[in-house]
Amino acid sequence: MKFTLLTILSCCFVFACAKQQAKKFVYAKKFDGLPKVSDFQLEEETLPELKDGDVLAEALFLSVDPYMRSFGEFLPAGMGITMPGGQVAKIIESKNADYPKDAIIYGSLGWRTHTVFNRNVTQDPYSIPTYILPSFADLPRSLGLGTLGMPGNTAQFGLLEIIQPKAGEVLVVSGAAGAVGNLVGQIAKAKGCKVIGITGSDEKCKWLTNDLGFDHAINYKNESVNDVLKKYAPQGVDCYFDNVGGEISSTVINQMRDFGRIAVCGSISSYNLPFGQWPQATIIQPTVVFKQLKMEGFLVQRYWSKWFDGIAQSKRWIDEGRLKYHETITEGFENMPQAFIDMLQGKNFGKAVVKV
Amino acid sequence: MKFTLLTILSCCFVFACAKQQAKKFVYAKKFDGLPKVSDFQLEEETLPELKDGDVLAEALFLSVDPYMRSFGEFLPAGMGITMPGGQVAKIIESKNADYPKDAIIYGSLGWRTHTVFNRNVTQDPYSIPTYILPSFADLPRSLGLGTLGMPGNTAQFGLLEIIQPKAGEVLVVSGAAGAVGNLVGQIAKAKGCKVIGITGSDEKCKWLTNDLGFDHAINYKNESVNDVLKKYAPQGVDCYFDNVGGEISSTVINQMRDFGRIAVCGSISSYNLPFGQWPQATIIQPTVVFKQLKMEGFLVQRYWSKWFDGIAQSKRWIDEGRLKYHETITEGFENMPQAFIDMLQGKNFGKAVVKV
Repeated sequence: MKFTLLTILSCCFVFACAKQQAKKFVYAKKFDGLPKVSDFQLEEETLPELKDGDVLAEALFLSVDPYMRSFGEFLPAGMGITMPGGQVAKIIESKNADYPKDAIIYGSLGWRTHTVFNRNVTQDPYSIPTYILPSFADLPRSLGLGTLGMPGNTAQFGLLEIIQPKAGEVLVVSGAAGAVGNLVGQIAKAKGCKVIGITGSDEKCKWLTNDLGFDHAINYKNESVNDVLKKYAPQGVDCYFDNVGGEISSTVINQMRDFGRIAVCGSISSYNLPFGQWPQATIIQPTVVFKQLKMEGFLVQRYWSKWFDGIAQSKRWIDEGRLKYHETITEGFENMPQAFIDMLQGKNFGKAVVKV
Repeated sequence: MKFTLLTILSCCFVFACAKQQAKKFVYAKKFDGLPKVSDFQLEEETLPELKDGDVLAEALFLSVDPYMRSFGEFLPAGMGITMPGGQVAKIIESKNADYPKDAIIYGSLGWRTHTVFNRNVTQDPYSIPTYILPSFADLPRSLGLGTLGMPGNTAQFGLLEIIQPKAGEVLVVSGAAGAVGNLVGQIAKAKGCKVIGITGSDEKCKWLTNDLGFDHAINYKNESVNDVLKKYAPQGVDCYFDNVGGEISSTVINQMRDFGRIAVCGSISSYNLPFGQWPQATIIQPTVVFKQLKMEGFLVQRYWSKWFDGIAQSKRWIDEGRLKYHETITEGFENMPQAFIDMLQGKNFGKAVVKV
């Protein structure tokens, strides 16, 4: 009896001492143009013991996304702030019935290997609430960061709710080989549109047209978007899903036709610039007036009430063979900064993900 | 009896011979930047006899509007094409029961003193159908070209249908002292908005704030719109009614706040440039995304089904003292080109009209 009690006490002691060590990347130096690996600092921290309501999550896959670059302009560098971002994680310890041990979650937990959080965790206004992943059947869980997660819903809702494409219409998507863009094009094809993607390499162009079924792809780095678009869309463009902003967007918009619709999802062409010090591009207002265009910017968080319907729909499209997913996976948590920088340089095909 | 018959015959003969002479301005030389008086040619023509269904209209007031400048880029110069535009006219002869003699009409009849037309007249896609003016009671008929016509409906529908301002919101209007802009600001005030106008002279600023009740006015020619707007709208701008395009619009849009709405009505800053060769301005996409802005261009023709409701509403606002009208009237048909050029240079307060 005495022995048992001692054992229990000693176990508790061991348990209390064996607090989880976590690795995290903090935003160390202010980004100047394209971020550098040295702008991030890898730190270790000891996580607190779980209190009632807490859970401990272990990252399985982490996301690197273009929007993180723009955070660098809002957040102060050198203050120990963990880089924000989403991850697919496993609950490895739980004092919260909502998140049982072994549950697989999506969480906006930042660039960190382990996280203690509870249901009352404060979310920044740009993050998605934490949730247990719905069943993906035999599909990879990493898709919870891509086709069956934020980028998938961004593509789906931005296209179907804002642009509302009709069969036979011409749709252009920029950043077409990126996490969102490639899905936009595929969904638009499923809706009967003629789809033209704009991207940054011949290899990506081939991928879009040969593998994903895009009608045409334009390599903006060695083709004149203005000239080639006139060839591919001689009657003009009806729908534009904009991931890049800048001169490419002016070129597309100025070739749109009456009552065209534009969903502005991102502006990656300007993310490496200081916030507010944006470049100039050809104005779009004359076309916006005379063609009576409609343009709307959106953050996918606004569609939270339809989030799981969106994921279920994307999964159905995958199951039906209408939507292909593609991930560019970097191995190793330590490589997150490089994976992020590579993604900003457009080295990824589809969703860029880091596997811990 | 014989005498009577002869008299009748002779009267008919005289009537048939006294065909109406009309003056008109044709688009003679291609506009190069700001139009010049010599770009227009005053011509006379003999109008045909009225056939069944025809009417003969005599212009009382003619409109000069910014959109006419952009037509100069679409239409070929030197081909004898009459300058397009609207007029308030009197039916002085009629073989059409729909347009009885002495009726006062609005017609998109072009820059001409007299016009023979019938109900089957082909309209260009940008023109408003011809109609008999509703009763203005004791208000001037020239308002059929302004507050109680196209510009009034443009202001009203663009503001209330596209922007849908709410009481307490901050609304900015550019081209604020123009035919449309001054009405937008007044209607927004009536809806409970804080209204800031952007215009091009101190005199116009005073007119907007002292006479029309705008909260603030900015003279973009000698003030920094960026700095002054931050002072007048420290929490940001909710609504923007855009008449000008270009850098002023980028400045306003980049100070908008979450879920702001933009109605793009005109782009006068670019109308003096060759079509398609537009200038550059600071890009707006980052703000459009992160603030989830909505922007829509429109031509007022789309609201034709509500046209007379719009005029009736504007008249009620005038009668209630909530809407002031102001016209800059040029006397003499021969002075149309100069009135047009003056308007393009912003010399008008409110609606620019030519009285024949």
